[in-house]
Amino acid sequence: MSGIVYIVGAGPGDPELLTLKAARLLSEADVILYDRLAPPDSLSHAREGAELIDVGKAPGGRGPSQDEINSLMERRALAGMRVVRLKGGDPLTFGRGEEECAYLLTRGIRCELVPGISSAVGVPGCAGIPLASRWGSSSFAVTTGRTAEGPPPADLGKLAGAVDTLVVLMPLSNLQLIADIIGRAVGPGTPASLVFNGCTGSQRIIDAPISEIPAMAAGSSPPAVLVVGAGAALRRRLFPDVQLHEKRGGPEA
Amino acid sequence: MSGIVYIVGAGPGDPELLTLKAARLLSEADVILYDRLAPPDSLSHAREGAELIDVGKAPGGRGPSQDEINSLMERRALAGMRVVRLKGGDPLTFGRGEEECAYLLTRGIRCELVPGISSAVGVPGCAGIPLASRWGSSSFAVTTGRTAEGPPPADLGKLAGAVDTLVVLMPLSNLQLIADIIGRAVGPGTPASLVFNGCTGSQRIIDAPISEIPAMAAGSSPPAVLVVGAGAALRRRLFPDVQLHEKRGGPEA
Repeated sequence: MSGIVYIVGAGPGDPELLTLKAARLLSEADVILYDRLAPPDSLSHAREGAELIDVGKAPGGRGPSQDEINSLMERRALAGMRVVRLKGGDPLTFGRGEEECAYLLTRGIRCELVPGISSAVGVPGCAGIPLASRWGSSSFAVTTGRTAEGPPPADLGKLAGAVDTLVVLMPLSNLQLIADIIGRAVGPGTPASLVFNGCTGSQRIIDAPISEIPAMAAGSSPPAVLVVGAGAALRRRLFPDVQLHEKRGGPEA
Repeated sequence: MSGIVYIVGAGPGDPELLTLKAARLLSEADVILYDRLAPPDSLSHAREGAELIDVGKAPGGRGPSQDEINSLMERRALAGMRVVRLKGGDPLTFGRGEEECAYLLTRGIRCELVPGISSAVGVPGCAGIPLASRWGSSSFAVTTGRTAEGPPPADLGKLAGAVDTLVVLMPLSNLQLIADIIGRAVGPGTPASLVFNGCTGSQRIIDAPISEIPAMAAGSSPPAVLVVGAGAALRRRLFPDVQLHEKRGGPEA
């Protein structure tokens, strides 16, 4: 009798933004494989005696490869265990949940994907940035600032020009290039917000025209999420005082 | 001493996809104003004696106006109550949370926005549709199929052409028009998935080329979410068997 693997999104940073389902699955798991971006406190839901495996990789650092993670899950599921694979954000939004689930399914292992609050939506939310609003943003797009090959996606400028609000995940390693491309597409004065450590007690927000963001962010460390366009303009107008994410709260003003 | 209003996202449908924070705030609230799209079971977290106010509006039907909802919240907060305004999905993603919070703040009433899983991300997630993946979707966009004025946004075709995967919320009332516009922009044979009652026990998914979706969906009722492009193609390849959302689960295959 083989076990099962739950690939679970842990949300954007605040351990209280975990879902009830994620908390239940963590409390029932025999083994939990967790990422660097999963909120550390979320492991407090694990039952006593559960095996906890850190499979996180620091930026540029060493950690288990994807093949090794797949194999860790596979072996434990085949031994009949209930496995939770805990990921920051949402497993199907740049979370590789589809890769891991597909790997397991092709080996006859049951797999279930459990949505979490994506950082692409939750981090703007904790920073008081409306992504889609009747007051000025009828569409938003989400992309990454860093493809598997290193540079931003080739169509970044086209993307910025097509939506009211653009969210760029993992923007820091290519920040100057990203700001240049977006600035050329929608104007260097377009409002932008760069959110560090979103939805945590150390949340920090830089509000500036997109062209000024790279200089103001010099020397900063990930994680960060960049928002450009109408949503960032709405934040300035509606919730200018939201800066720190409250210990018990979202953007309280 | 004035009270406080928490504007809380209840997630996409499954009451277990509520966050721990939402559940706590519901259990502490003196009064809860809830939407039609908030999962009904989420009210089970309310404490005994809490006032529950249904402010939902059926499509095309009658319910309190936005002004009336604002005023209901305002009066109770001014009376010192802890108010939870519970919304389906996420409050800042087509949730009008920014409108309600801004209204309260300008009257000196404390307001806090609490993110939830947006239906734009969570419903595709429950249907096994990867929105962003190294395996073929480096960007996705979210828009509405129905602006406040009625028709889809004017730039829908441009949007479809700019991203790998497009998510359209509230697509049903303009479905033929939406399919025509998107089909012209990216080709009528582009894979699409239309998900009804996402993340609930009655979830139903139609997979078809975008041009064939309207005929196949004829007579269907909301809520529904439309996904077009790379994400829908990935679902077919990776998780073709995901159809019903399991009572206790996400997309189990």
